[in-house]
Amino acid sequence: MVHAPARPPAGAPPVRINLYSDTQTRPTAAMKDAMFRAEVGDEQHGDDPTVHALCDRMAALMGKEAAIFLPSGTMCNVVAILTHCGKGDEVVAHETAHILFSEGGAHAAFTGVQIMPLKGAGGMFTADDVRAAIRPKTRYTPPQRLLEVEQTANIGGGKVWPLAQLNAVAAVAHGEGWATHMDGARLMNACVAAGVAPKDMVASYDSVWLDFTKGLGAPLGAVLCGSSDFIGAAWRWKQRLGGSMRQAGICAAACLHALDHHVDRLAEDHANAKALARGLRQIEGLVVEEPETNLVFFDVKGAGCDVPTLQRRLAMQGVAVSGLGGRVRACTHLDVTAPMIEEAIGLIRAALHG
Amino acid sequence: MVHAPARPPAGAPPVRINLYSDTQTRPTAAMKDAMFRAEVGDEQHGDDPTVHALCDRMAALMGKEAAIFLPSGTMCNVVAILTHCGKGDEVVAHETAHILFSEGGAHAAFTGVQIMPLKGAGGMFTADDVRAAIRPKTRYTPPQRLLEVEQTANIGGGKVWPLAQLNAVAAVAHGEGWATHMDGARLMNACVAAGVAPKDMVASYDSVWLDFTKGLGAPLGAVLCGSSDFIGAAWRWKQRLGGSMRQAGICAAACLHALDHHVDRLAEDHANAKALARGLRQIEGLVVEEPETNLVFFDVKGAGCDVPTLQRRLAMQGVAVSGLGGRVRACTHLDVTAPMIEEAIGLIRAALHG
Amino acid sequence: MVHAPARPPAGAPPVRINLYSDTQTRPTAAMKDAMFRAEVGDEQHGDDPTVHALCDRMAALMGKEAAIFLPSGTMCNVVAILTHCGKGDEVVAHETAHILFSEGGAHAAFTGVQIMPLKGAGGMFTADDVRAAIRPKTRYTPPQRLLEVEQTANIGGGKVWPLAQLNAVAAVAHGEGWATHMDGARLMNACVAAGVAPKDMVASYDSVWLDFTKGLGAPLGAVLCGSSDFIGAAWRWKQRLGGSMRQAGICAAACLHALDHHVDRLAEDHANAKALARGLRQIEGLVVEEPETNLVFFDVKGAGCDVPTLQRRLAMQGVAVSGLGGRVRACTHLDVTAPMIEEAIGLIRAALHG
Amino acid sequence: MVHAPARPPAGAPPVRINLYSDTQTRPTAAMKDAMFRAEVGDEQHGDDPTVHALCDRMAALMGKEAAIFLPSGTMCNVVAILTHCGKGDEVVAHETAHILFSEGGAHAAFTGVQIMPLKGAGGMFTADDVRAAIRPKTRYTPPQRLLEVEQTANIGGGKVWPLAQLNAVAAVAHGEGWATHMDGARLMNACVAAGVAPKDMVASYDSVWLDFTKGLGAPLGAVLCGSSDFIGAAWRWKQRLGGSMRQAGICAAACLHALDHHVDRLAEDHANAKALARGLRQIEGLVVEEPETNLVFFDVKGAGCDVPTLQRRLAMQGVAVSGLGGRVRACTHLDVTAPMIEEAIGLIRAALHG
Repeated sequence: MVHAPARPPAGAPPVRINLYSDTQTRPTAAMKDAMFRAEVGDEQHGDDPTVHALCDRMAALMGKEAAIFLPSGTMCNVVAILTHCGKGDEVVAHETAHILFSEGGAHAAFTGVQIMPLKGAGGMFTADDVRAAIRPKTRYTPPQRLLEVEQTANIGGGKVWPLAQLNAVAAVAHGEGWATHMDGARLMNACVAAGVAPKDMVASYDSVWLDFTKGLGAPLGAVLCGSSDFIGAAWRWKQRLGGSMRQAGICAAACLHALDHHVDRLAEDHANAKALARGLRQIEGLVVEEPETNLVFFDVKGAGCDVPTLQRRLAMQGVAVSGLGGRVRACTHLDVTAPMIEEAIGLIRAALHG
Repeated sequence: MVHAPARPPAGAPPVRINLYSDTQTRPTAAMKDAMFRAEVGDEQHGDDPTVHALCDRMAALMGKEAAIFLPSGTMCNVVAILTHCGKGDEVVAHETAHILFSEGGAHAAFTGVQIMPLKGAGGMFTADDVRAAIRPKTRYTPPQRLLEVEQTANIGGGKVWPLAQLNAVAAVAHGEGWATHMDGARLMNACVAAGVAPKDMVASYDSVWLDFTKGLGAPLGAVLCGSSDFIGAAWRWKQRLGGSMRQAGICAAACLHALDHHVDRLAEDHANAKALARGLRQIEGLVVEEPETNLVFFDVKGAGCDVPTLQRRLAMQGVAVSGLGGRVRACTHLDVTAPMIEEAIGLIRAALHG
Repeated sequence: MVHAPARPPAGAPPVRINLYSDTQTRPTAAMKDAMFRAEVGDEQHGDDPTVHALCDRMAALMGKEAAIFLPSGTMCNVVAILTHCGKGDEVVAHETAHILFSEGGAHAAFTGVQIMPLKGAGGMFTADDVRAAIRPKTRYTPPQRLLEVEQTANIGGGKVWPLAQLNAVAAVAHGEGWATHMDGARLMNACVAAGVAPKDMVASYDSVWLDFTKGLGAPLGAVLCGSSDFIGAAWRWKQRLGGSMRQAGICAAACLHALDHHVDRLAEDHANAKALARGLRQIEGLVVEEPETNLVFFDVKGAGCDVPTLQRRLAMQGVAVSGLGGRVRACTHLDVTAPMIEEAIGLIRAALHG
Repeated sequence: MVHAPARPPAGAPPVRINLYSDTQTRPTAAMKDAMFRAEVGDEQHGDDPTVHALCDRMAALMGKEAAIFLPSGTMCNVVAILTHCGKGDEVVAHETAHILFSEGGAHAAFTGVQIMPLKGAGGMFTADDVRAAIRPKTRYTPPQRLLEVEQTANIGGGKVWPLAQLNAVAAVAHGEGWATHMDGARLMNACVAAGVAPKDMVASYDSVWLDFTKGLGAPLGAVLCGSSDFIGAAWRWKQRLGGSMRQAGICAAACLHALDHHVDRLAEDHANAKALARGLRQIEGLVVEEPETNLVFFDVKGAGCDVPTLQRRLAMQGVAVSGLGGRVRACTHLDVTAPMIEEAIGLIRAALHG
């Protein structure tokens, strides 16, 4: 969901320090070994035991009745909104939400929903904000059906919604008869950072999904969880969208491996992000947001630079960062080590003041 | 487009002074006579001479190549967006725009567009606001295709977009390759108030429509204008939506009559609105917006009242007003006379402080 | 719904005998007088007493709980399918149905339904045909939600569905949990021809509409009837589509007048159609379908002619007919008299063998 | 795309001879080894070299400018129709086409197209059939935009469209200004059976896709090919649908392996299918269609049996077959050997007459 072009400038060396996105992690040898050994079947017919195992495990982890495996997080959002809403309904979400900012107008295009954008620092809003967004119920207004939150809030700076705030905004929604949906692309980062169990974190949300291709390091796949009825209806949309695959267990095995081996270690990514922020704060002119998870946002205008210029200079040193909303975003993940962070700090200093 | 319920309280007398909406004007005897005498045909087959006359006249008045007759202003917006945009495109409009606020999510439902809301006082925004809304062109962002403005801005307070500002925002849009569309529900009020000819007012807009059921007093109908290609494509959507009628000339005759007899007199409605605002300002506790056209918005909280209470008390006196966004809206039109305004001021004072 | 171009050839005189379509009837003086005297209000706000009177009367006539006034029959179909169905559902209808053949793909475009076409003579199908169309209920098949019939069947030749057959196909649909919808564009022709009361004719149908602009002679408008819940939901779609009007009572008055004065006289149109068919059968080479209502279809190939040629020759004599599916269609209605029929027979003979 | 339930009866042993579908092939050890060794990147950002290699190779093989990797064949159809067509357009296809029969109404739901079904034996139609399906171009008819064919025709019996017929129907379509699209789920079976190179087979088609999960034996993935402009537009729909993945090269490697190792061997599947048909013809009462590729359809009614009964009996012997349109379908593929075919014939005989 990063808008700056991924293309390095001509003459740039290969990327050595990839702070561009946690989506770019490569499967580890151990993960590939798990994939190689997976028992598979025709998942579209409900016959893939590894996909079943992943869905069962995710449903339990999230405290929901059922789960469905999909090729991407974006498809989780598309399927969820198709399932919760109909044409002409309205979804209430933050103005920086992925569904509004980074999915190409898909929700209007496929479901026919209108999205009402709420404001709020850090990609979050309050129960009062939700109350203020309730429309009168007339023939002139779209029926409001769904509240959506993003945990962590990406453009919001990788911020973690406090559990009480998640519950408070959901309570307003449920009080109005709306459903609640959590875009949990980086949910595990939030759970690890906050020390809250996933099923507690998502207890107020009727549907929630987790992306396995970000900090968790799998090559593809996301799992959407909810009630049995919801997942039953979601299956029909998965089929229509072309999200039903065949021997998908080979990919689901990578996700199971990630649940076993790549969750606790997110704490390292968060520590690396904090170290990066500390180091960057020593560089004159940078304004650095305090990271709560694995995303470090900083503003380079005070250092007399701009995002594309810095990206280009770093690329020539084998370092990749992204630009988002006028800021630089550096992302830590399992292919980024503490020494790389130290090196990156030095290279960023040199690029700005060198 | 007024959200407060139109239902009077039990025991209320018939409405004598109808400040509820200019949509409630009743056809005059002269207008009905024109309808009675109209030559008609099958307009769906292109055979109604009175519909042709109206469309030709409107195209000339707006300085566009062609025009199409539709049963309502909402259908003009639906047809225009269907014609300008495709699924997953984005429309940029004010956050209080009728298309976003009062058409039930129709544009997402039928066209599949996402609407990006802009802020700005009086229902207006600036060229800088439009520039700030331009998205990077990536696979993640919806293609932006259309800028929409509302002249006058209803929820904005009946404000008149200055011509230079209309042209400035359109220039940014055209520079980006977007089309421009004007919701001209009350366009004639704007033209009369500003002393600008319609074709000058709409010169920067690729499509524009005028509603005949508001200040112009016709029973039904609106006309959408644009290039010949645009109107040719619009015809297909009119047909699909069920907006093609048969001997519609009988209604188009009322619109032609309105163009002859009900445009210049809008100045009276504006004078009445100003008189009403002056009178209301004498009432303690009221905060009254200065009307530029025929809509008078005022806040009653300072008078220790709220909108529904005032509506109820006035209804018992045969006076109707509407509520919109926490404010009272009083609307002048051809069924409202200067003496009625004086009487209404007194009744409002009595209702608040009586 | 007639595909041949309505444009007469250059040099053609005005149409004297209009057998083109019953949509081209012009309002009578008495009908216009009723319109002139109608009490009106803002129908979009539920305040038009004449619209209320029409809806109440239609609901009673059709034996349904409620009714809604719309600008056209096509919008009745659009609203009904939007209300009965959601995206990806399937509607079962005859392959010549107006919704499939003549509404520009509107139902796919706006509702997202797939239409399964059934075959059958005269635009009708049987209960067995419906049973054979039932799909297995899997993730691969669209959920089937609605059975649609057209009474009378236009392209089917103006044929009248027998009541027992209407009930039999509806029973299969209801047994599957589908809703049933009747496109009653020319329902009154069917009722008059069959001697069946409207409410008996439509008893098995959850929704039904009647067009007032065909044999009934009103300038615009159609009324859709169904349960209170259905009509409540339909109102929202009417609003979104732009089918909500203002002082629409002026048009509803024409419809009420038609119910009083133009129903029984449809028998004359049917007699004229039979007389026309008898006369045409005397012309060598014509194959003439026996009319059951006001539509006479005949094939001119055996007379060494084709549809456009005959249309052109007749137009030069002031006679209009339409072409539909390779056949000529001649339509009787209140602007067509018995002497015109005699004259038309002679002119058709002359055009073919003259 | 097989509608009969995949669930074996209680007490059934594991499937030993899987004639259910070629979608159920499991990746071979060599294929998994190729996956393990693949170089990968973030395919959504255009950085996965293995996905690039697959797309380049497929574009060359099909003689098209560009190609795009998608998670499934159904998504190829969804993306292609979204790219070729807009709301309210019409697609002309065989009445047994996968897009009409087995994709859950997705094309109406997501694109808003109406599909006109053509008849014809073996899932094929002729140029004359296409000519007869051309609609008059009026406001009442949906614009026709796309002709779709399925090579091989699955429900048609696995029949191979002759090249001349493919070209003839495409020529009619192109003459009308329509685009042409080939659902090539089993295209390689057709090419091998007919001895025609893929790029010759698809030369008349503007877009074409190949499924790698059927006879080619990959766990997931399909590739859609077309012009550079078409694929550019398709990318946006892939992104919106959630079909963009991350390190998808791990799956693309399986597809490349399949192109190297699993194409020529399809001839074995065809030989096995013919052997199966020969053997089944010796069983009293069976009516067996002559297979052209890897699908053997036979009717068991003459043997006093029905599809579910035979499925159940065979399942108890560890044999899986599918039911489709009242017939049994047996499908050969790389997990089915010649001895299995011999054994299956005996078990089917025993199940019917044993």
